[in-house]
Amino acid sequence: MRYSQMLIPTLKEVPAEAEVISHRLLLRAGCIRKLTAGIYTYMPYGLAAIRRVETIVREEMNRAGAQELLMPMVQPADLWQESGRHEKYGPELLRFRDRHDRESCLGPTHEEVITDIARREFHSYRDLPVNLYQIQTKFRDEIRPRFGLMRGREFIMKDAYSFDVSDKAAEESYRKMYDAYNRIFTRCGLEFRCVEADSGAIGGSFSHEFMVLAATGEDTIAVCNDCSWAANLEKAAIRPTGTQTEVAGDRVPAMERAETPGQRTVKTVCEFLGIAPQQLLKTMVYIADGVPVAVLLRGDRTLEEVKLKNHLGAKDIRLAEDQEVYDATGAPVGYLGPVGLKIRLLADQEVMGLGPVVVGANEKNAHLRNVVPGRDFQTDEVLDLRQICESDPCPACGGTLRLVEGIEVGHIFKLGTAYSEAMNARFQDQEGNDLPLVMGCYGIGVSRVVAAAIEQNHDDAGIIFPVPLAPFQVVILNLGIKDEAITAMAERLYAELGAAGIDAFLDDRDERPGSKFKDADLLGFPYRITVGKRFAESGLIEVRRRRDGFTEEVEAVAVVDMLRARLDEDVSKD
Amino acid sequence: MRYSQMLIPTLKEVPAEAEVISHRLLLRAGCIRKLTAGIYTYMPYGLAAIRRVETIVREEMNRAGAQELLMPMVQPADLWQESGRHEKYGPELLRFRDRHDRESCLGPTHEEVITDIARREFHSYRDLPVNLYQIQTKFRDEIRPRFGLMRGREFIMKDAYSFDVSDKAAEESYRKMYDAYNRIFTRCGLEFRCVEADSGAIGGSFSHEFMVLAATGEDTIAVCNDCSWAANLEKAAIRPTGTQTEVAGDRVPAMERAETPGQRTVKTVCEFLGIAPQQLLKTMVYIADGVPVAVLLRGDRTLEEVKLKNHLGAKDIRLAEDQEVYDATGAPVGYLGPVGLKIRLLADQEVMGLGPVVVGANEKNAHLRNVVPGRDFQTDEVLDLRQICESDPCPACGGTLRLVEGIEVGHIFKLGTAYSEAMNARFQDQEGNDLPLVMGCYGIGVSRVVAAAIEQNHDDAGIIFPVPLAPFQVVILNLGIKDEAITAMAERLYAELGAAGIDAFLDDRDERPGSKFKDADLLGFPYRITVGKRFAESGLIEVRRRRDGFTEEVEAVAVVDMLRARLDEDVSKD
Repeated sequence: MRYSQMLIPTLKEVPAEAEVISHRLLLRAGCIRKLTAGIYTYMPYGLAAIRRVETIVREEMNRAGAQELLMPMVQPADLWQESGRHEKYGPELLRFRDRHDRESCLGPTHEEVITDIARREFHSYRDLPVNLYQIQTKFRDEIRPRFGLMRGREFIMKDAYSFDVSDKAAEESYRKMYDAYNRIFTRCGLEFRCVEADSGAIGGSFSHEFMVLAATGEDTIAVCNDCSWAANLEKAAIRPTGTQTEVAGDRVPAMERAETPGQRTVKTVCEFLGIAPQQLLKTMVYIADGVPVAVLLRGDRTLEEVKLKNHLGAKDIRLAEDQEVYDATGAPVGYLGPVGLKIRLLADQEVMGLGPVVVGANEKNAHLRNVVPGRDFQTDEVLDLRQICESDPCPACGGTLRLVEGIEVGHIFKLGTAYSEAMNARFQDQEGNDLPLVMGCYGIGVSRVVAAAIEQNHDDAGIIFPVPLAPFQVVILNLGIKDEAITAMAERLYAELGAAGIDAFLDDRDERPGSKFKDADLLGFPYRITVGKRFAESGLIEVRRRRDGFTEEVEAVAVVDMLRARLDEDVSKD
Repeated sequence: MRYSQMLIPTLKEVPAEAEVISHRLLLRAGCIRKLTAGIYTYMPYGLAAIRRVETIVREEMNRAGAQELLMPMVQPADLWQESGRHEKYGPELLRFRDRHDRESCLGPTHEEVITDIARREFHSYRDLPVNLYQIQTKFRDEIRPRFGLMRGREFIMKDAYSFDVSDKAAEESYRKMYDAYNRIFTRCGLEFRCVEADSGAIGGSFSHEFMVLAATGEDTIAVCNDCSWAANLEKAAIRPTGTQTEVAGDRVPAMERAETPGQRTVKTVCEFLGIAPQQLLKTMVYIADGVPVAVLLRGDRTLEEVKLKNHLGAKDIRLAEDQEVYDATGAPVGYLGPVGLKIRLLADQEVMGLGPVVVGANEKNAHLRNVVPGRDFQTDEVLDLRQICESDPCPACGGTLRLVEGIEVGHIFKLGTAYSEAMNARFQDQEGNDLPLVMGCYGIGVSRVVAAAIEQNHDDAGIIFPVPLAPFQVVILNLGIKDEAITAMAERLYAELGAAGIDAFLDDRDERPGSKFKDADLLGFPYRITVGKRFAESGLIEVRRRRDGFTEEVEAVAVVDMLRARLDEDVSKD
């Protein structure tokens, strides 16, 4: 492709609305243009990167035995009523009435449509297993769309749905997708991790998220430095600290009251009493579906609300207001403690091994010292409630952890029979039993992969496309449009690279060298070939790798072979 | 692909709702499944055919210098208000409000979005010409969706938009698309014609339709048997019959009254008076935007209402009710005539050369004989008003015409500056003048092409896919799943064809031969290879062409070369 033939409207200014780097670079590199909130046109260069992702996804899905189809974007509401999601889904589901006043919606996902197909087409165990996928434009009416392609309202998604005869067979289908996803993101040239995830609104029984690691992301994940373990913070189970010996209560003096006038936070109480936050327990009250419940954590720990919510099986939890705390416990916020507390109390597992500790006295301006858990108070339940942190050992191998930002690009769910039961999608097994289909569903945010790739691969000058996702692998800069020899050589290299099956982009514009260099960096071509003064003087061509600036000068005849070798290295490394 | 690995849910019964052959066959061959009125899932086999069309379209659009992008399906209503189409478009435009109560719509076409991009990105003649296209799912809320993929509500379309500096440059862009469309439909292996068309709601200044010829269609077109001329009936200009000498009024007796009691139709009047319909003029009254106007045609001709409407520049025309006719002319329907008529009278061009003729007397139960046009009555205008018919000479070469059914699969429009003026999309020309962009738009109904291909290519047994659109070019029937030698040979041929780059489909199901033959015919594979009894007995393989049943028996080693040769013949013929 020639620059003169392709519309790539690069921008010098960073649009003010773009908060994250991928959004800024996608706009600056002319990859996308905003139509309205959360809705973008994929311009030719951006679309080319998306197509690279689509091709890899399609190849690996086909290789895993999945079959491509294409379902409608407009769906009748009655299917969503059957599954029960019409009520549950919330305002992200865009609903409308057509000209015949039939209630319809724009599909944010296709469990209902595919289950409707399944119940009509699959009748026997002989029809199974089946895995059907599509690559399609989806719509979710996000309340606050942002970050460009990271959280848009309209986006391209690959969604797949598997149907099996049994839980065991469904796990095999799940495993195939797990493997396919690992291959897909590896082939995309991305650094990623797979983590166990909370299943969220789709309501499955088990799920994994594939996260691209980046400096910024919407989720923090814990990653082991020593093994392949990784987890979402919300899901990261913490090893019970079983080795710690229980404090012998009889060797600790009886608990005593300490005046702490006006000291209401962990920080100020510790400073006031001259103790470390590890020596204090904090007590917090949550309202879970309207009912107050107290939680107890070491002073320096963070509650993982999802763990609490899941344990309680609550639909909704929130920190109690001051008045609610007082109404429930009779104690003011800032001085809450487990001793004599009258509401349900859940303690984080590490709490019971601590002591002596300081806790609130359940009255204003006072705490208690020398409190020994188990001796001075009991709890209703002890469980894993806190967020994992970098000082925790790896739950899998005991190694060291680090917390990194992750961008969710894939999500696989073991759905079980939730949809097939609700929508009556059943089959006959080998013994003639009538059973519900066992389902799985598997998503990849295709357009989001491009954004995530840029979040992970960029520098101040612009995008650094991983070779497999680059619209073009090489850019050739003709720095002497009016110089016959330079132009002839640039054209010759362009033709030779094309003939060698390397996607080359020729900057044949009549622009100054500076602006050509800048655009080449911004657009993120993995390799840059410069045909300019140096060639005119010495016959040498400069080949530069975008990622690390590694530069070589070679004779013109050697360029194609050298690039071929470099690209092969890159892809095998990815 | 193996049949055992692909979901092709064929049906034996023809679904009652399917009125046209392509709809019936697409359902029966498991290509599509209905979700709701006018909305279908493209099942794997159907999607594969659609992808064939997409690939051809994409290659030819790129070859013509057009660039692919992808615009959103959800569009803000304010753009449609700017262009003026929000009011004009009617209820086919699906409108809704998003969660923030912003008026939006589902894009049935993308002139507004692309013009918005153009006005932001194109500022100078140096940015032009540009032609941008997308292949995308569109939605039109048809009041009566029908015929499966022929007139659905959700469908796949390729739409392209060109931007030029001048009318002349825009014509060159138009010509490139005209040529590309001819290549596309030729490469698809379809018999088609290009006709001048009425521009319709998009409101252009010039347009051509590409029609696939079939036994059934939504439009009748006139085609010359002797040259490449073809036209929509609505647009087919009829050669003025200028050679006919005018009737010498003085050699015809004066007109006289003829009693025609109760004779109100052309047929009965002619029988009653013993004349041919060619000797009678019929007078009809239309209401054009509320105003009555009379038209005069030879008795055996059909008025082409579009010609009348376009000539009058009317928004709406309809045949007048009996009472309206009486109110306007004082004459009863059935006895209307041009002599003494008091309202505006338009005569078809051939009328004035006729005579003597019979016309209505403008009073009940009476006609007039020996009426000579021009002598006995005058008209306000004489123009081309009637529908062309097979007895007319070709307007281009004078050859003979035939009327055939056409299915519109492509439409190209010269839009001019309608959108760029309305939306203020302007550029500076070489002299610094500020001018509106000159636009064209170019559509192909991608999913409809598959339906049209089937309407044109089928028989009682099923689909006959043209080679370029067939999901697989060859089916191999293994008729001895339990026979080792037969199965080994079927597998060997499958592998060899794959290695030779021929898309083969292996029917490896454990089904009876009869049902395999039936499915092979229904699914429309261009070639069928049978490995069965005959091979077991004599080592011969049967190769049969679906289109004409031409059958050859060859040694196994010769199969691949033979098929390669046959396929090459087919494609070069297409």
